[in-house]
Amino acid sequence: MDWTGPRIDHVGIAVRDLEAAAERYRRLLGTPPAYRERVASDGVDAVVFALGTSRVELLTPFLDGSPVDRFLGKRGEALHHLAYGVVDLRAAMARATAAGAELIDAEPRVGSGGTLVAFLHPKSVHGVLTELVQIDGH
Amino acid sequence: MDWTGPRIDHVGIAVRDLEAAAERYRRLLGTPPAYRERVASDGVDAVVFALGTSRVELLTPFLDGSPVDRFLGKRGEALHHLAYGVVDLRAAMARATAAGAELIDAEPRVGSGGTLVAFLHPKSVHGVLTELVQIDGH
Repeated sequence: MDWTGPRIDHVGIAVRDLEAAAERYRRLLGTPPAYRERVASDGVDAVVFALGTSRVELLTPFLDGSPVDRFLGKRGEALHHLAYGVVDLRAAMARATAAGAELIDAEPRVGSGGTLVAFLHPKSVHGVLTELVQIDGH
Repeated sequence: MDWTGPRIDHVGIAVRDLEAAAERYRRLLGTPPAYRERVASDGVDAVVFALGTSRVELLTPFLDGSPVDRFLGKRGEALHHLAYGVVDLRAAMARATAAGAELIDAEPRVGSGGTLVAFLHPKSVHGVLTELVQIDGH
């Protein structure tokens, strides 16, 4: 098997006030954000902190009715999703399906940072919106 | 400054059926759990997957009315907490306080795996139950 086990790539946190959250997390984590990004396909603006090989993404919607906007309306500010970095995205998608998880994205799509990603439906993985992210390696 | 920046130590996921969740995550992640643990102080049983230097903890309450039991009653299965590994826990606690975060644990206490930990109140860090974990180093 050439499949290499997943790592935690990032954790996404849904926030209402991106600038206030960025400032609080900057001080909490003791490091400035690594970058900011608008992910048009997801309707979010992100402030991203790099912590070793993982990242923490603060997310706020820029479109009413986008998934993160609806999440905030239902849950309020909270942990939003958990992303695993995998070396072979298609193999990880097949593994997820075989494990009984339900793919939101039947095919890899371009996500944050230009990476290829696929999301799994929270209901199929014990309540966690789960993202698989293709990474170059470990 | 001798303070070394935090890393993602683990993500905790609250689940109702620990064995079903452990089996689904075993197949999803392609690796067996690293260990199981009862954390009496938190009223939870945990199944823990090691992913590089980070972990995913599946948590279920063994006591009615414990924090994770109440979380499940309110939110259902979901991402429960985010833990940062820090080299100097007391320095990280001071940094958190200076950042405007509110400590749940005014003093370090023993958490999972016998580590020293302190939790931050979710309301003070944009809705995320946040744990600081003393680690040996990076």
